[in-house]
Amino acid sequence: EHVSVLGKAKQLIAAAEQKAAEIGVPMVIAVVDAGGNLVAQHRMDGALLGSISIALDKAYTALALKMSTEEVASVVAPGQPLFGLNTSNNGRFITFGGGFPLVDGGNVIGGLGVSGGTVEEDITVARAALAAY
Amino acid sequence: EHVSVLGKAKQLIAAAEQKAAEIGVPMVIAVVDAGGNLVAQHRMDGALLGSISIALDKAYTALALKMSTEEVASVVAPGQPLFGLNTSNNGRFITFGGGFPLVDGGNVIGGLGVSGGTVEEDITVARAALAAY
Amino acid sequence: EHVSVLGKAKQLIAAAEQKAAEIGVPMVIAVVDAGGNLVAQHRMDGALLGSISIALDKAYTALALKMSTEEVASVVAPGQPLFGLNTSNNGRFITFGGGFPLVDGGNVIGGLGVSGGTVEEDITVARAALAAY
Amino acid sequence: EHVSVLGKAKQLIAAAEQKAAEIGVPMVIAVVDAGGNLVAQHRMDGALLGSISIALDKAYTALALKMSTEEVASVVAPGQPLFGLNTSNNGRFITFGGGFPLVDGGNVIGGLGVSGGTVEEDITVARAALAAY
Repeated sequence: EHVSVLGKAKQLIAAAEQKAAEIGVPMVIAVVDAGGNLVAQHRMDGALLGSISIALDKAYTALALKMSTEEVASVVAPGQPLFGLNTSNNGRFITFGGGFPLVDGGNVIGGLGVSGGTVEEDITVARAALAAY
Repeated sequence: EHVSVLGKAKQLIAAAEQKAAEIGVPMVIAVVDAGGNLVAQHRMDGALLGSISIALDKAYTALALKMSTEEVASVVAPGQPLFGLNTSNNGRFITFGGGFPLVDGGNVIGGLGVSGGTVEEDITVARAALAAY
Repeated sequence: EHVSVLGKAKQLIAAAEQKAAEIGVPMVIAVVDAGGNLVAQHRMDGALLGSISIALDKAYTALALKMSTEEVASVVAPGQPLFGLNTSNNGRFITFGGGFPLVDGGNVIGGLGVSGGTVEEDITVARAALAAY
Repeated sequence: EHVSVLGKAKQLIAAAEQKAAEIGVPMVIAVVDAGGNLVAQHRMDGALLGSISIALDKAYTALALKMSTEEVASVVAPGQPLFGLNTSNNGRFITFGGGFPLVDGGNVIGGLGVSGGTVEEDITVARAALAAY
């Protein structure tokens, strides 16, 4: 049965919210489509205000570079080949974990971004969402 | 029983999505809190990309000016007292209908913005959401 | 006796706050110096969020154009010589009343901006501040 | 007795100004509310122009991340988990000391930012303000 793009994003976000509640850390969760444009974004009560743009930009980064933001982290460190990458794209690229490309049949069809806790917590919540996808 | 700020935003957005589906026009719906910060935003499949920022900015405008964006429209026309208002606030103010303040006990506690159809359709969908609030 | 630039700005703002309280309309009041840079800005409890940038930009406009923002209004109307002026200066120019240049010995030494009420209320509060200057 | 949000901000800023005068370094001091929006900002005579946006952004950063900007500094260094954080949020995050969250009853209700001297001087002045809070 057909599920809309927004419908899938809601499922991802609901799974993320459930995991975030479970670990007791309020999060912001964002989903972008293949064009890098927002599909849906939720901010849980008490989540950091700074996470609003970070979650969206993690989703954008993962879509735009077709890799997780933790993979991006490894190539932008001082001395690494893409040092300075994060100031391109009007500063939208996030270079730490919590963003993942959404892949369907081998194609990158969107991005998911989670922000609000430590990097490890953000990754945990994002992975829980992807597992439910 | 306590409903979270995000929970209330989801209710508003669900009611808006239902009305938008009913009239057959895909919409973007956004809710901001009392500080003008995003609580939740959904883009229905097929909605105009241009509506992503318009919906959010309608919500922001209604919160920041404590009036609906259709009321704003009437005071910024040429010859009216606030002609030129729309270029303030970094151009975020939207001066046509579809944005409403969220009021609770006489206090403005947030803003709702709807974009995707004609101004009349946007207002219809926003009013349906407010009625379910 | 020497009064600092900040000290004078505080006096202006205090007089504006007193008048705003008197008429029962919470306001944002801003003062910029001869370089157009912020000296002081206060937001009264309950003032419109949208007034934060408007008050500062009114002060900037009055300083930068060496005229009150109500005078600016008269020259930017459709058909008038400076129609469209408000989108210059990165959209910072405000084209309705509430901003006044601060004049000392015939020289423009700063700007005062008031926002939060109707244009008339903003002007009333700004004039009360100037009278106390 | 009730003190307004602006009233509390004035107290904080007055204490900061007194300390800054004591150590002979003119400062810019800014206070934002729980939504990250400006409550009050003062620039002392002679303070660095660059400090106007830095003070406000320090206050915003501390509010938006619920930690002091010196704590932020320790997690964004090369090799640290949040390296690159400072280019998110449209570059508004400040990653050196002088910004503190304002906490009331365990809740973060705003942010204070001080800029104008060395990082140590900024922190000294901000702590003096917080002590008087």
